[in-house]
Amino acid sequence: MNDLTIALRHDAGKHLYEQIYLHIKQEIREGKFLQGERLPSVRSLAEFLQVSRSTVELAYGQLLSEGYIEARPYRGHFVCQAEGLFNLGEEKDVREIWRETEKKEKRGIVYDFSPNTIDMSAFPYATWKKITKNILVDANSDIFISGSPKGDYALRETIAHYLHNSRGVNCLPEQIIVGAGNDYLLMLLEKILGRHVKIAMENPTYRRAYRIFDSFAYRICSIAMDDSGMSARGLYESGADVAYVMPSHQYPTGIVMPIGRRMELLKWAGEGEGRYLIEDDYDSEFRFKGKPVPSLQASDRAGKVIYIGTFSKSIAPAIRIGYMVLPLPLLQIHEERCSFYSNTVSRIDQRILNEFIGKGHFERHLNRMRKIYREKHDLLLNGLKGMEKNFVISGADAGLHILLQDRSGRKEWELTKAAADAGVRVYGLSEFCVGEIAPQWKADTVIMGYASLEKEQIAEGLRRLRDVWGAG
Amino acid sequence: MNDLTIALRHDAGKHLYEQIYLHIKQEIREGKFLQGERLPSVRSLAEFLQVSRSTVELAYGQLLSEGYIEARPYRGHFVCQAEGLFNLGEEKDVREIWRETEKKEKRGIVYDFSPNTIDMSAFPYATWKKITKNILVDANSDIFISGSPKGDYALRETIAHYLHNSRGVNCLPEQIIVGAGNDYLLMLLEKILGRHVKIAMENPTYRRAYRIFDSFAYRICSIAMDDSGMSARGLYESGADVAYVMPSHQYPTGIVMPIGRRMELLKWAGEGEGRYLIEDDYDSEFRFKGKPVPSLQASDRAGKVIYIGTFSKSIAPAIRIGYMVLPLPLLQIHEERCSFYSNTVSRIDQRILNEFIGKGHFERHLNRMRKIYREKHDLLLNGLKGMEKNFVISGADAGLHILLQDRSGRKEWELTKAAADAGVRVYGLSEFCVGEIAPQWKADTVIMGYASLEKEQIAEGLRRLRDVWGAG
Repeated sequence: MNDLTIALRHDAGKHLYEQIYLHIKQEIREGKFLQGERLPSVRSLAEFLQVSRSTVELAYGQLLSEGYIEARPYRGHFVCQAEGLFNLGEEKDVREIWRETEKKEKRGIVYDFSPNTIDMSAFPYATWKKITKNILVDANSDIFISGSPKGDYALRETIAHYLHNSRGVNCLPEQIIVGAGNDYLLMLLEKILGRHVKIAMENPTYRRAYRIFDSFAYRICSIAMDDSGMSARGLYESGADVAYVMPSHQYPTGIVMPIGRRMELLKWAGEGEGRYLIEDDYDSEFRFKGKPVPSLQASDRAGKVIYIGTFSKSIAPAIRIGYMVLPLPLLQIHEERCSFYSNTVSRIDQRILNEFIGKGHFERHLNRMRKIYREKHDLLLNGLKGMEKNFVISGADAGLHILLQDRSGRKEWELTKAAADAGVRVYGLSEFCVGEIAPQWKADTVIMGYASLEKEQIAEGLRRLRDVWGAG
Repeated sequence: MNDLTIALRHDAGKHLYEQIYLHIKQEIREGKFLQGERLPSVRSLAEFLQVSRSTVELAYGQLLSEGYIEARPYRGHFVCQAEGLFNLGEEKDVREIWRETEKKEKRGIVYDFSPNTIDMSAFPYATWKKITKNILVDANSDIFISGSPKGDYALRETIAHYLHNSRGVNCLPEQIIVGAGNDYLLMLLEKILGRHVKIAMENPTYRRAYRIFDSFAYRICSIAMDDSGMSARGLYESGADVAYVMPSHQYPTGIVMPIGRRMELLKWAGEGEGRYLIEDDYDSEFRFKGKPVPSLQASDRAGKVIYIGTFSKSIAPAIRIGYMVLPLPLLQIHEERCSFYSNTVSRIDQRILNEFIGKGHFERHLNRMRKIYREKHDLLLNGLKGMEKNFVISGADAGLHILLQDRSGRKEWELTKAAADAGVRVYGLSEFCVGEIAPQWKADTVIMGYASLEKEQIAEGLRRLRDVWGAG
């Protein structure tokens, strides 16, 4: 156990589990653990380090999800092949993606039901190109000159109009900040909300947001969810200042927060001057059944909701344009503290996007994508019909992924492993968990995204899953 | 004096001068001060608030530079017309710029020698458009998918190559982080260097960087400069962790730091584990005399220089692409703390830029711009020849602005005011000062940029200046 003498610091900016995770990761990278070596059991490491078992479970969970270690049922945790894990600066360029693809294929993964991808095959490249061409004329040389720190006014007007019509968002263009993606907008929000924020997150949640808040050294508390989403009682008890929620289609559970719960959350926010709700409306464009759910911001009368959205899912991940709608009190703070930060989006790109939305191309593109995604969605759900005796299916009807909970108590690692052996990748719910619950050997739910698979791939992936999971 | 009962907080994150500045700004915006109303004298407000005079001078200086108040010689400070000062969110879009232009023209400013502009008239729009067109083909649909957090590898290779050849920078592409402009890169650097940084800045300096560091709640100390730039002794005495310097062409003084001073600064950095030098190489492309000065990074053997550059001046302000070269120890920290932040630059734009540099267009564009700027530079300096009896001219031979120091002791407000009355705008050195020195009623130096003026405008502006300043 000498290798795991970890100097844990309770006063450090990092959680204990993170310190353990980082230490073991480093040891693996430096080759101090050999491939196939068994890690100490959760219980013994917890005793040795004088921390709770759940802290060690969390550290192991992180190592599992990043592929440094693997869990073997009834035997424990083992170090994976470390070779190639550490590249200077962890490149993730095209060559790396190729390599990863190769690795996957080596492991035999052919059908990847990732919940994090989109279908770019129907993207209107020609339209985008034509708009670009028309914009890049000499008469528009002003778009090469610095613009507003908050983004070009014309684009913000267009976004305000779009958000009002499609999401019921009430705002002036002046309240909108355009920025280079969600991560950047959250960094900007840190400057506005300050550093001493305790933030409440749903659990499971969007782990990227979790990692970002964690990098801010925000105190993070995870709040349990019921069928209506984040528990209001849990939020009250948490002592949090700010809550990060996805009320229209929670990621990854797919829960839609009903109006009653929304009102409770808004009431909570209204009872403290520094309380705010961050509404991440990440995939509200895709809803296949029932009428659209308006945004939480639409119900906000007290200026308590910070609405964040992006075009990463609805247009393309790489265009790096997101937006944030600030309530008036925060707009004032933004003006004082951040109004001099230069905008992070090229003005050419802002103009292209403005044309793309303003001339109706975005709406047409969304309609086309809704149709494509609906077909894939229906194909997946129909294919799963035969498995309903084995699984509770949820999160359907909106977004680009669904959840399968095993009725017979099989654990997620059993399901993901069986799938992988058949060349299919599905995702364990524990990968989306933060805080103390649902380590992967307890969770019984897997997630399947379908956006980027071809219809034939969905059908074949399903066939294989039926074989290995049983058709009920 | 009741209006200025300010509850100063010595423990707050904000400097005292800033608290005073913000309070008065707010009062002016809310109309509690009337246009033309006289502010209390520096001495009386300092006594009343129990702070030093220089603190009040600094607050007034900030209000002056932002146009909230004006200084009338021998009479004091007066509130400017507040109407229109406060727009919700302080829009700065095209309409605002028009409005400002109109305002300027109303005030009769016809020739604006701003040091902050560039000449876009010779930008190769057609080339940019052609590259864009060639990139936006279906075969390149991968550029719409998320790329590396640090930027596309190919672009980083190109930048590394360019920096090595043109600036002597020694780095691997892995050390380069591409980001949406300097402000963003500094925000990222905050995450890498941590929060408890004491940063040393040259004085005068690039005020935007000052405001950004100030928004991080970094402790900022301004270090006096001599003819060789930042004083090494001052740096040692400051207790700073990090120094922000512009060794190749200091902004705004134009001082080029000689090798001896560079070595002293590198020695200082080498003597403390957490010590680093941020080298902002903002306009190194434009040098008109003598051989190019290599970067400070080129002399760094110990991994102590963070090199920051941008294409804002050399290509266009609005394309929002900058880069940062991290020394290896900080690269490791970046990987641990920030490697999951999505990149902020569109991959399409990264590809366009990569082609633009890689195919030689950038070099050709720079050569063209050097020629254009050199002509304007020579025209300005020739025109100033007749005024050499009145002014010491410095900062020439590189960059896009020069400095004029009055030999007869006239103060900058006298010079800027006389110029403005003749329809010419020049900039007082005090606008670039931070900390305790050179309030505008002491400084005797003005700055003139020439990049965006036509040659005829430079000639006519000079003619007017000779009239009002005297030809010596």
